[in-house]
Amino acid sequence: MTAPFPVRFTLEHVCRQSGARAGRMETPHGTILTPAFMPVGTQATVKAMSPDELKQLGAGIILANTYHLWMRPGSDLVREAGGLHRFMSWDRAILTDSGGFQVFSLSDPKRITEEGVGFTSHIDGSRHILTPEKSIQVQNDLGADIIMAFDECTPWPAEKDYAQRSLERTTRWLERCLEAHQRPGDQALFGIVQGSTYADLRRQSARAVTAFDLPGYAIGGLSVGEPGPEMQAMLEETVPLLPDNRPRYLMGVGSPDYLVDGALRGIDLFDCVLPTRMGRNGTVLTSEGRLIVRDARYARDFAPLDKACSCPVCQTFSRAYIRHLIKAREILGLRLTSWHNLHFLVHLMEQVRAAILADRLADFRAEFFDAYGYTRGKS
Amino acid sequence: MTAPFPVRFTLEHVCRQSGARAGRMETPHGTILTPAFMPVGTQATVKAMSPDELKQLGAGIILANTYHLWMRPGSDLVREAGGLHRFMSWDRAILTDSGGFQVFSLSDPKRITEEGVGFTSHIDGSRHILTPEKSIQVQNDLGADIIMAFDECTPWPAEKDYAQRSLERTTRWLERCLEAHQRPGDQALFGIVQGSTYADLRRQSARAVTAFDLPGYAIGGLSVGEPGPEMQAMLEETVPLLPDNRPRYLMGVGSPDYLVDGALRGIDLFDCVLPTRMGRNGTVLTSEGRLIVRDARYARDFAPLDKACSCPVCQTFSRAYIRHLIKAREILGLRLTSWHNLHFLVHLMEQVRAAILADRLADFRAEFFDAYGYTRGKS
Repeated sequence: MTAPFPVRFTLEHVCRQSGARAGRMETPHGTILTPAFMPVGTQATVKAMSPDELKQLGAGIILANTYHLWMRPGSDLVREAGGLHRFMSWDRAILTDSGGFQVFSLSDPKRITEEGVGFTSHIDGSRHILTPEKSIQVQNDLGADIIMAFDECTPWPAEKDYAQRSLERTTRWLERCLEAHQRPGDQALFGIVQGSTYADLRRQSARAVTAFDLPGYAIGGLSVGEPGPEMQAMLEETVPLLPDNRPRYLMGVGSPDYLVDGALRGIDLFDCVLPTRMGRNGTVLTSEGRLIVRDARYARDFAPLDKACSCPVCQTFSRAYIRHLIKAREILGLRLTSWHNLHFLVHLMEQVRAAILADRLADFRAEFFDAYGYTRGKS
Repeated sequence: MTAPFPVRFTLEHVCRQSGARAGRMETPHGTILTPAFMPVGTQATVKAMSPDELKQLGAGIILANTYHLWMRPGSDLVREAGGLHRFMSWDRAILTDSGGFQVFSLSDPKRITEEGVGFTSHIDGSRHILTPEKSIQVQNDLGADIIMAFDECTPWPAEKDYAQRSLERTTRWLERCLEAHQRPGDQALFGIVQGSTYADLRRQSARAVTAFDLPGYAIGGLSVGEPGPEMQAMLEETVPLLPDNRPRYLMGVGSPDYLVDGALRGIDLFDCVLPTRMGRNGTVLTSEGRLIVRDARYARDFAPLDKACSCPVCQTFSRAYIRHLIKAREILGLRLTSWHNLHFLVHLMEQVRAAILADRLADFRAEFFDAYGYTRGKS
């Protein structure tokens, strides 16, 4: 008999209007109501935010990047600190990625073999090799509640032949990850479905990955440049092959429309740097669409970023003040736009969940897209 | 009969051991217990901090810079926002400087005449002239509780002849400021004593400025490069000539030793960018002296910045984590060091006040300097 998984998912409700689902994911650091958006804290901090503020806006789980923390400050240091939760003073749940995506995207040159990926550090130019075993060892050191299998996020576009060889290697790497995992009782290892934008490869990958009984499954390699409809089509191929009683995580997806449409297709978890990165560039998400608050037109606009928003930023500060802060390169400006944007996405997922529980997610989608401006061609 | 000043000072106690004083300064935005340190919010924000955090650490009054706000976003915009308090969402007291110091220090070339100072904007290179009338008009627009007379902060070293002509012009400018002041019922205009490091000129300036019945008096032109003992000597010349029933503000002074020694000589108010600037550079103030937390020696130091400190940063985060944030150029690192340093100085002034009320400020000074390391030659 195997020990129970440290992360357990309970399906609470399936929306009768859309087929979307609401659930509850229990972790060693609290319960997350799904669908949920996970803010990204690449270097053991969600950029510009404090742990208290993340709690205030309702984040139950954040993501941290294994590659960055391995390179700096080093996973041995984090382990010595008592793990990532204690190191960064975050007592809710954490998910770490495998480091693979960063090795593939930040490092050049790199060399992929069956063994792993050789790469050069973006910090000091030192040479390293990331393997399934190394990724899991680093993630065991970091101690997140959810850890991810080492995969290749197949670049888009990819030749079908390459995409197939890539996903098959990813499956073999998954087996090595499971073998290497030293803390299966504390940390839930999720597998990742790849297959690029080929429906049959997605199905092949989903079948291969779900052949392993894992506490959760992710869909990777989407939102990497392919057209939106192709992404949705791949979700429709993949999701039905994933077990109902396990959480489903769509990696790296964070724009409001993709979140709503992902939930609609049965996704439970999302993550993206979009809200914080966009915020630092002076753009905010509002119920009426994106607003570039650094624009001159808001210089004397004393309204909040979003009149419909309940976040402390919108309760306290004006567009004119936030624009001033951003123009004057003041840190508080980046804090306020990041806070508001994260609140927006976390709160959007709460609304999506409420709509699922009320069996009206399709209606909610139509209302939201109309107000946000997607139906008028805005992005 | 003249209306009462909008800022009123009550002398509460004179320390029998040192002659230092504890007082209470009532303003239209709350009462400040003195001696007090005023954090600097140059561009309508104390760098890296939120208004809520400033309240949490006990700041009752902050300073904003007239020159910066005049140049960007413009004082007309701030007036339209309802004044600086509403613009930046700070409902406690604010003091604005005259803009003179920045015009003298940031602008090059500049031209000083009896009329005022012609200068070039550091933002867009546009030409402007700052006069006593213009300074007061801008400060009336900003609407701070305390506004400062337009003066020349005499550079150090200065020829005695220049220092005398400068202070006499500053006195004439004070008269023009009083004449120009449109909101004497809402905003308290403080005069400024100059005179460089010449004892007789300091006395001359103090007599000339206190010939005007003002709600408060400042001492300017110190801590601008002169040796510390010269500064203390100038305080000893000047302070006894200032009226007991008015607050005394030592401009631009913020290192812990100067704060304690200033209070010891009868100063009530201080301001400085030191805690926030030093924090952003990765150095923190502790009860045992300055600590350069970005140093490699703290990489695995899981103790708080200051074991004796009660601030939320020291209750929550380790040196190792804060060092990691600073090395990784993360905004939260700057937030935490700034918060801790501001807390340290505001709290130091609370301790100084308690020591005054207990008639033991000289003892407190000896204990503090010993623990901090000043008596061992540390800075």
